[in-house]
Amino acid sequence: MDRYLSGPQLARLLAIDPEARPYYKALAEVVRALILDGRVPVRTRVPAERHLAEALGVSRTTVTAAYDRLREQGYLESRQGSGSWTALPEAGALGTDNPWIVSNDDGLLPMHAAAPLAASTLPEAIAYATERYPRYGLGMGYDSVGIAPLRQAIAARYTRRGVATRPEQILVTTGAQQAIHLVASTLLSAGDPMLLESPTYPHALDVARMRNARIVPVGIPDDGWHLDLLTCAMRQSAARLAYVIPDFQNPTGHLMDDATRAGLVSAARQCDTTLIADESWSELAIDEVPRVAPLAAFDIDGRVISIGSASKLWWGGLRIGWIRTTAAMVRRLAVLRAAMDIASPLFEQLVVTRLFEDIEETRAERRRSLSASRDALVAALAEQMPDWSFTVPRGGGSLWVRLPSPSATPLADAAACHGVRLAPGTWFGVEGTLEGRLRLPFTQPPQVIAEAVSRIAEARVRGAYGARPAEPLTPAL
Amino acid sequence: MDRYLSGPQLARLLAIDPEARPYYKALAEVVRALILDGRVPVRTRVPAERHLAEALGVSRTTVTAAYDRLREQGYLESRQGSGSWTALPEAGALGTDNPWIVSNDDGLLPMHAAAPLAASTLPEAIAYATERYPRYGLGMGYDSVGIAPLRQAIAARYTRRGVATRPEQILVTTGAQQAIHLVASTLLSAGDPMLLESPTYPHALDVARMRNARIVPVGIPDDGWHLDLLTCAMRQSAARLAYVIPDFQNPTGHLMDDATRAGLVSAARQCDTTLIADESWSELAIDEVPRVAPLAAFDIDGRVISIGSASKLWWGGLRIGWIRTTAAMVRRLAVLRAAMDIASPLFEQLVVTRLFEDIEETRAERRRSLSASRDALVAALAEQMPDWSFTVPRGGGSLWVRLPSPSATPLADAAACHGVRLAPGTWFGVEGTLEGRLRLPFTQPPQVIAEAVSRIAEARVRGAYGARPAEPLTPAL
Repeated sequence: MDRYLSGPQLARLLAIDPEARPYYKALAEVVRALILDGRVPVRTRVPAERHLAEALGVSRTTVTAAYDRLREQGYLESRQGSGSWTALPEAGALGTDNPWIVSNDDGLLPMHAAAPLAASTLPEAIAYATERYPRYGLGMGYDSVGIAPLRQAIAARYTRRGVATRPEQILVTTGAQQAIHLVASTLLSAGDPMLLESPTYPHALDVARMRNARIVPVGIPDDGWHLDLLTCAMRQSAARLAYVIPDFQNPTGHLMDDATRAGLVSAARQCDTTLIADESWSELAIDEVPRVAPLAAFDIDGRVISIGSASKLWWGGLRIGWIRTTAAMVRRLAVLRAAMDIASPLFEQLVVTRLFEDIEETRAERRRSLSASRDALVAALAEQMPDWSFTVPRGGGSLWVRLPSPSATPLADAAACHGVRLAPGTWFGVEGTLEGRLRLPFTQPPQVIAEAVSRIAEARVRGAYGARPAEPLTPAL
Repeated sequence: MDRYLSGPQLARLLAIDPEARPYYKALAEVVRALILDGRVPVRTRVPAERHLAEALGVSRTTVTAAYDRLREQGYLESRQGSGSWTALPEAGALGTDNPWIVSNDDGLLPMHAAAPLAASTLPEAIAYATERYPRYGLGMGYDSVGIAPLRQAIAARYTRRGVATRPEQILVTTGAQQAIHLVASTLLSAGDPMLLESPTYPHALDVARMRNARIVPVGIPDDGWHLDLLTCAMRQSAARLAYVIPDFQNPTGHLMDDATRAGLVSAARQCDTTLIADESWSELAIDEVPRVAPLAAFDIDGRVISIGSASKLWWGGLRIGWIRTTAAMVRRLAVLRAAMDIASPLFEQLVVTRLFEDIEETRAERRRSLSASRDALVAALAEQMPDWSFTVPRGGGSLWVRLPSPSATPLADAAACHGVRLAPGTWFGVEGTLEGRLRLPFTQPPQVIAEAVSRIAEARVRGAYGARPAEPLTPAL
């Protein structure tokens, strides 16, 4: 504990409306905001209750109530005799009561999932939805295509990104995962060939398996897609469906250039293949990258179905994704989705509608935090795992690491014993390939990443011991 | 406009904390609450702004701001020169800007869906979730089985209803529909026989069709289930799965007695059939009914899978449902559900956790409103459609009407031309049966029901004309 704030110092930072009632709640809220936007660093000692009460000219009970509230929410920690200090109720701290970790029954640092924490615009958007949902709440609340303002916001964003889109072309889904599942369920019969990148997003593989597709993997070389490999595989397999992640590919982080995009869509046209373009990461460039058009911009006959998501840019807990396709296909998909889960939650649809308004602000915020986390990961690996190699991606949320030997699974087992959940490369490939690879996400805060890498280093030396913790119920994202 | 409230009268009804800030918001909120719980009836003229300002001792601007807010939210309507009166932003008013209707592209009175409006405890639960989600928001927000407090609340409710249940036996789903889809996807292969009641919930039929099941319908006679019919059909078809709605069956409203429950589960055991018990309506008794145990209470070997939902008791827009089964099956289902949509929205899970706390209050509220709506429907039909017959159900949300001739589809077509969306009996059966039936929900407010019945009566006389409006994207619920 090297930082300390006196009563007058903290009081100076607190701009509280003196009329606010109850005052203790407002006080807690303002302190929380200071912590969340970094103006009061985490692990800063806060003044004793009576000192802050004096400085603010309020009763000590009021400050006690505010501190209690902050403690309850995880923003303050206290120890008898040592005072209180600021904290974050983050997934990163082992042994906290964070329910996300509890729910996984394992309490491990979640380095298996590339899933950023909630964006800072979320509370405002939730307040917005709270105000507006009654208009919807008095209706029945079901809407299998999505509420009009959200479809408009999504369509407008596509238009802005370079592919003119009408709201009728948008279907709101329960996350990108449902979008993939829905499109595959509609277009793929058992035994149909489905092309997937290797490596690819594990839950897309799950969908292919669930649909009993014939999986056709196409390798992505270390320098990114090779158009001829894609084209040949598509032609030779007569793939009915091809699932690609052109924007900051998960897990490799590659960004497909315009020429490859054009060639891919043209090849799909020749082979009568429908392309699913998963753009979950498309808004998450970190470095300056060449401006590329969405895959759908190269489409002339409705064979590119684009999938997007609120999960990576804003928060996965929202479970809002979408499909962009032809209006006719939207209606076709909506009928099937009604049999799957009727509709997406209405409140979240309002939340995401509002989030779109400040999308550039959130992109900038993500750029900063992903950049810091990526740098922390790269630095920690350089120091502690000099024999691991990787290309630093210019966006997205993960490093695709090459290990010096095919040892990802035993390493993941060992890491789990040392308190870190890893995603071995095999999760991203078919038939047990990619054992020499590891996906390391940089979506957690730098301090969590640093801690995780230290533990992985320890795991490499000491290996697995005792019983391996159970598999998490939510695997790689 | 026959009702009018003077400034002092309205002021007397308003218990506003004088410290509340901003005051206009608090004022609007209190008026809204008065309207929603019926203490100020809809279409009551409210005092002029300056009269209320005087009576409250606040500035006129404050009242203006409060009225503006109420107007914006749909709780107040005004016309130049005629003053303002209370209103409800309900789905029932044709031509409003209610987005639910807009989204269906049809603007019809939604008498095709048995889906109650949001319960009055919802705002409080949303406030609760708003306060608590940050603890989760700093985690990744994904949880394929559901958050611990919600699983606990659901398990506790089962235990209270008479079947001891541990949280590990609960899987939270994206509505009951996903629960049905998930169980069928796990247990049913293409061509497998699946038993369904006739009539039954249309989206359960959708699932059976989507899974390419061999559908085995079992008729429900007018006096409810006949155990021997169920048992014979199960035995003769060797049904792998049987989907039943024992509590206020949708659409007939029947409540299965304990003897039939015991016999059904015992027959399922003999036939090695798994029973899906859809209990979406189980909390919604209207009259005094005999206390029956959940179907799972008769189960000894895990062959009863119970499905529940927040949709009918609280609100469909939440998209929260659940499955109660063995802990082992929960884990098996969770793996598949991760490939379907990863997890349910986290915010809504917190909302429903809170809603469970006041479940008895909500049940009483629903009992009152469903009772009033049911009575209004029965009265309107007795007056305007004396040749229609039905049994008045003791719970649930719909009347299962027998028409004097097999004419449900043309009637629905005609009604659509007269501004009412109907659910013809054929939606609830297989192979075009049940054309002589109509399901009429009583989940809308009495005035909407009265208006709808008048329009249906008109439609019977005048028939269809012009183009039939498009099918809604969200059919019968």
